[in-house]
Amino acid sequence: MSSAASLRCRECGKEYPLSLKYVCGDCFGPVDVVYDYDSMGLNRNSFVSRPKSLWRYHEFLPVELSPESTELQAGYTPLVNSRRLAGELGLGRLYVKNDTVNPTGSFKDRPAALGVARAVQFGLKSVGCASTGNLAAATSAYAARSGVPCFVFVPYDIEPAKVSQAQAYGANILAVEGTYDDANRLAAQAGELYGIGVVNINLRPYYVEGSKTLAFEVAEQLGWEVPDHVIIPVGSGAMLHAICKGFEELRRVGLTDRVPRRVTAVEPAGCAPIAHAFQKGSADVMPVEAPRTIAKSLAIGDPGDGAYVLKDIRKYGGEVEEVHDEQIVDAVYLLAKSEGIFAEPAGGVTIAALKKLVEDGRIDKDESVVCYVTGSGLKTPDLLEGSLPRPTRVKPDARSLSQVIAR
Amino acid sequence: MSSAASLRCRECGKEYPLSLKYVCGDCFGPVDVVYDYDSMGLNRNSFVSRPKSLWRYHEFLPVELSPESTELQAGYTPLVNSRRLAGELGLGRLYVKNDTVNPTGSFKDRPAALGVARAVQFGLKSVGCASTGNLAAATSAYAARSGVPCFVFVPYDIEPAKVSQAQAYGANILAVEGTYDDANRLAAQAGELYGIGVVNINLRPYYVEGSKTLAFEVAEQLGWEVPDHVIIPVGSGAMLHAICKGFEELRRVGLTDRVPRRVTAVEPAGCAPIAHAFQKGSADVMPVEAPRTIAKSLAIGDPGDGAYVLKDIRKYGGEVEEVHDEQIVDAVYLLAKSEGIFAEPAGGVTIAALKKLVEDGRIDKDESVVCYVTGSGLKTPDLLEGSLPRPTRVKPDARSLSQVIAR
Repeated sequence: MSSAASLRCRECGKEYPLSLKYVCGDCFGPVDVVYDYDSMGLNRNSFVSRPKSLWRYHEFLPVELSPESTELQAGYTPLVNSRRLAGELGLGRLYVKNDTVNPTGSFKDRPAALGVARAVQFGLKSVGCASTGNLAAATSAYAARSGVPCFVFVPYDIEPAKVSQAQAYGANILAVEGTYDDANRLAAQAGELYGIGVVNINLRPYYVEGSKTLAFEVAEQLGWEVPDHVIIPVGSGAMLHAICKGFEELRRVGLTDRVPRRVTAVEPAGCAPIAHAFQKGSADVMPVEAPRTIAKSLAIGDPGDGAYVLKDIRKYGGEVEEVHDEQIVDAVYLLAKSEGIFAEPAGGVTIAALKKLVEDGRIDKDESVVCYVTGSGLKTPDLLEGSLPRPTRVKPDARSLSQVIAR
Repeated sequence: MSSAASLRCRECGKEYPLSLKYVCGDCFGPVDVVYDYDSMGLNRNSFVSRPKSLWRYHEFLPVELSPESTELQAGYTPLVNSRRLAGELGLGRLYVKNDTVNPTGSFKDRPAALGVARAVQFGLKSVGCASTGNLAAATSAYAARSGVPCFVFVPYDIEPAKVSQAQAYGANILAVEGTYDDANRLAAQAGELYGIGVVNINLRPYYVEGSKTLAFEVAEQLGWEVPDHVIIPVGSGAMLHAICKGFEELRRVGLTDRVPRRVTAVEPAGCAPIAHAFQKGSADVMPVEAPRTIAKSLAIGDPGDGAYVLKDIRKYGGEVEEVHDEQIVDAVYLLAKSEGIFAEPAGGVTIAALKKLVEDGRIDKDESVVCYVTGSGLKTPDLLEGSLPRPTRVKPDARSLSQVIAR
């Protein structure tokens, strides 16, 4: 069962009971779930016969163990020992956390599963989110599985294809006449006025906890060893902060004896507000007005957890990298061709950063590295158009083969 | 380790050593892998600490345990207890085997993983397949992961989008100036002349064994209970025959005490050669000249294992159903909206058949039913176009919400 005890303001430390509160009433800081770590009583053997999904770490999740009827077995995705890619880059120990294979095709299954399960536990009658992509799909799928309606708030001018997966799951798409910010604001109002559990707004403290499992799984899959270096793509920054929290929790309860020695955050160059702040040595993240990148799922101009990403990166002695669209596309192909893992651009972002670190001589060949690859290439079929070679024409006879196949 | 002992002709019983032979030299029948079941020494506890992938059943697979460096952890996909869909249909115990979450998005990961691993074990220098869709993607991914080149044989006039996933994995696409049959023939010649391991031709005996794991997993996930009734989509028929073989093997070694009481095969109505033979009581399957169905991955006009599907169905006292395109689309949505599982049309085919059996009163409400859902809806984005409702426009103010959200 869950060991969640209360909510606590990340800024002023004020505590609240586990409720729909998501902003501190005193200082307007974000609130986080706090756990009773001493009650967990876990050791490495505790996990042996647990389900191979994110629910195996239920003590660290702020929901009473999800009834089978609201979940889709997200998580416990493969940690792929990537020897061929490591060899090409001249590295020793490289692992890819392949989160492309979650039930809806991205890591968003993790927070969405938590958010929707917590909404059901609160007795809310509907859920929703403000999102145009992976989160919309994930929230809609868990809502469908749980039998509650789902409202997805989007700006009215987005391409219909962006929400078609969510629509397949039966979500109600609300096209808000305004910007992404307007859609966000209306979602927040809908949460207050109609008691909708908006997973990335009023359920955010619970929702973000789902991404901690990306740390737990990596540690367990490495035999409870912690990697030296993790490379993480950043949109809002919530996932990176959650992964760091996850590694810290494992050490706190004694399942591991350290945290990663180095955390690298990566943004696409067309939307890199945190990288810019990092380069300037600033603690404040200045929003990017008009994000331009093929990594749409990272195109968040005003990242909610940007300041916390900066803190985490400084604490871990890491860096914030930015990579260009061409590097991202090259990296998507590099990963697919060397390891058989086909990622969306946000997944290419981490591999592109890895390559850049290698080329700049800024990585130690002996360190163990984990790259988080967070969404499936099947989500972004347009990426391939125009960048693939033409098939080779051959006549239907054996002789013509000799021109295309080496003996 | 593998307990594979030899190859044996399915027709005349002649035995051969484990080699690249795929057709009996005496009678031209297909050859199957035969195992030394008595040497396996398995009981239900044998599996507790094995990897959660298809390799956990390595005794029943014709490859020495795959080294980590050639596999992507295919298989052991969720068996989803589908209470909401069961409730809508008035059924008692319904499970969906969610094979949409395999590494390349379809069940073809299973046979492709076996075929490529066996090619590597044979020391072959390249692999390939004749396929335009899911198999091309899967073979290419395992080839990439294994570091061997992959040749995909397709008719020259297919849409480029059909092979883009395979191309992302770096496959060489050979566009054969001719029909699908010509592409197939040239692939077979390439296998003979250049020693290419063509997974669905000269490696077929090994390749097909991968799909047996769809039976093993279902039995184990049900606590080594065998479902009363399984519903299986049919293209070539190889998967259905393999699933039946899998259930028979489990009984043979005493892991279970029976096989399913009923096996239902389903074809799309626009390509239903086996259903037609079944309806006529014939043992011969007459090819369909021009398949027409949205379930492209089942559009195989001359199914290689058609006659064996008929035998299996008669042995198990089942039926061969056909379902129309509109029923398939409706079923894709029904599954997505009730259980949060988004399938390609071939997955809708099984749910459509289930619904038809319920409507016709041809299913027992007390029987346990497993529906095999074999590919991801992300593979076929076109399916949704035109069939989804328009998003609901709302103004960016709270008042406008009252018109779209019920309190």
